Amino acid sequence: MVTAKARAVNGPDQNFRETEVTRRELDTTDVLIEIKFAGICHSDIHTAHGEWGEVNYPLIPGHEIAGIVSDIGENVTKYKVGDRVGVGCMVDSCGECENCREGEEQYCLKGNIPTYAGTDKYGEPTQGGYSTHIVVTEEFVLSIPDSIGLDEAAPLLCAGITTFSPLNHWNAGPGKKVAVVGMGGLGHMAVKIAHAMGAEVTVLSRTLNKKEDGLQFGAKSYFATSDEDTFTELAGTFDLIINTVSAKIDLNAYLSLLALNGSLVNVGAPAEPLEVNAFSLIPHRRSFAGSLIGGIRETQDMLNFCAEHNIAPNIEIISADDIDHAYKRVLDSDVKYRFVIDISTM
Amino acid sequence: MVTAKARAVNGPDQNFRETEVTRRELDTTDVLIEIKFAGICHSDIHTAHGEWGEVNYPLIPGHEIAGIVSDIGENVTKYKVGDRVGVGCMVDSCGECENCREGEEQYCLKGNIPTYAGTDKYGEPTQGGYSTHIVVTEEFVLSIPDSIGLDEAAPLLCAGITTFSPLNHWNAGPGKKVAVVGMGGLGHMAVKIAHAMGAEVTVLSRTLNKKEDGLQFGAKSYFATSDEDTFTELAGTFDLIINTVSAKIDLNAYLSLLALNGSLVNVGAPAEPLEVNAFSLIPHRRSFAGSLIGGIRETQDMLNFCAEHNIAPNIEIISADDIDHAYKRVLDSDVKYRFVIDISTM
Repeated sequence: MVTAKARAVNGPDQNFRETEVTRRELDTTDVLIEIKFAGICHSDIHTAHGEWGEVNYPLIPGHEIAGIVSDIGENVTKYKVGDRVGVGCMVDSCGECENCREGEEQYCLKGNIPTYAGTDKYGEPTQGGYSTHIVVTEEFVLSIPDSIGLDEAAPLLCAGITTFSPLNHWNAGPGKKVAVVGMGGLGHMAVKIAHAMGAEVTVLSRTLNKKEDGLQFGAKSYFATSDEDTFTELAGTFDLIINTVSAKIDLNAYLSLLALNGSLVNVGAPAEPLEVNAFSLIPHRRSFAGSLIGGIRETQDMLNFCAEHNIAPNIEIISADDIDHAYKRVLDSDVKYRFVIDISTM
Repeated sequence: MVTAKARAVNGPDQNFRETEVTRRELDTTDVLIEIKFAGICHSDIHTAHGEWGEVNYPLIPGHEIAGIVSDIGENVTKYKVGDRVGVGCMVDSCGECENCREGEEQYCLKGNIPTYAGTDKYGEPTQGGYSTHIVVTEEFVLSIPDSIGLDEAAPLLCAGITTFSPLNHWNAGPGKKVAVVGMGGLGHMAVKIAHAMGAEVTVLSRTLNKKEDGLQFGAKSYFATSDEDTFTELAGTFDLIINTVSAKIDLNAYLSLLALNGSLVNVGAPAEPLEVNAFSLIPHRRSFAGSLIGGIRETQDMLNFCAEHNIAPNIEIISADDIDHAYKRVLDSDVKYRFVIDISTM
């Protein structure tokens, strides 16, 4: 057993405090990871604040984890001590259902085991990556290519795969017009990945404040959604729209931007229901869909793809004492584009 | 020019009255059709009652048309006098846009020209099939296979293609589980077609009243949606759900019945918006989509498919004097499963 240092919240309105968490004795297929960096995802904030349902506090968030293997169970074959590895949003699944067998563990029919705020197969609460160590079964550990820094790798494990998976599933690529709604942590990754896949990328952001960045990340054009003309000018344009915004949007307005057979895919989930007019979908055989992170195999593909195409998130490294401040800045949309905690400061 | 006998309404609350309509002189590619049968579609009723936006009265509905070619323009090559033909929901389109060039004229970017309540390329209002004759450019005329009676062919031109097209597009077939919501004119065709395509079909109807029919049409099972247990029992089951119900339904409940990557496709359009929770879509990468009739080439494929598989709608033939009564019965869901007007009674 390893006693790891960590940062936890004790309630929905609490600040982060220093704490310790006991990581389980290594089971035969387990990997002990010394965490080097952990990204801050907006869903950490939703969960820490109790906005996505009841949470058992204390809670240690963090599902964008990058580090080094420091010990392995006796039957581990994929990793050895010293390997550069990552852990994303889930640490286990049933492994037996139809979806798990297809490598889509995120859609495990029994529910995947989330990296934090879940319960592992031993009946213990899972605790995340705002911590010096974590133990994860090797099947849910990713290999980080040498060319990607561990700090930059961390956000790929959620922001990267959450956008890569729908772009991949809905065939973003040459000849396809893809719009990305929102230019935050997920959005900026979606732009980079879709561009690298060969699609023509447009950013739809509330304002033009980040236009220069968006074009540099690979977008061909950049429109402000606060300008109503945007919706007239771009009507019927896109094959795929990735909506990274968790706030409620005027969905019918965005659906009107889809071309024939186009799909608008939500990767963020507003708490309130969205209103859809059937007439927004029927006249162009449009779809409104959702997508959840990605499977383990696909996550490895994403990491390899990012290495091959020199894609990394834009990050701002913070110390463990700055998590609360970083949360406030995320809520104010004041981050370009992902906070990553340097775990050595813990 | 041909002066055709017809039945028209003069306002949203009016009964049908005898009238005449002048069909245009044959242009070089036009076909004059002597109409033998015209189906009554629920959208005829919506339009006649002015529920789908403003209508220029008098209005002659009818877009499920079957008859015999009685004259042709000088450059017509596809049809000759005496041919058995049909006309569906549209009579023209721009022919030049991306969607038209792909044979998806129903999604014409300039708007297809509907069989009635539209304006043709000569600037004249289009009037539908509750009439003894109609003139249509040959590209929008379908050939009715000999093995299909003209009376039974009529409803295929809307109810048939409206369900065939999404079943075809979303790959209903062997190994796929398809649910059909609603057992009316469209629903009963969806069951027959999906079964013939090789899919395993389930009917989801408010009650079990038409269960025997549903099973006979090819459904493997039949569930009452008024029974809440249905939604528990069938959770996560279907690859494709075709929703033929135009009334507002609890969409999230139906979305919960979709398996991984499943799509719920609306072919009916409730006037009010539908509420969708992003969490109904994200955890299984589900889609909510819409589909509009089908292209001309696909409509011909559907007719040929129905001939090959001995598929026909169940119809009740009425005389022209009974249209108002039939409308009332459609609104009361008292029809098994499609009214067809015998135009010889006009």
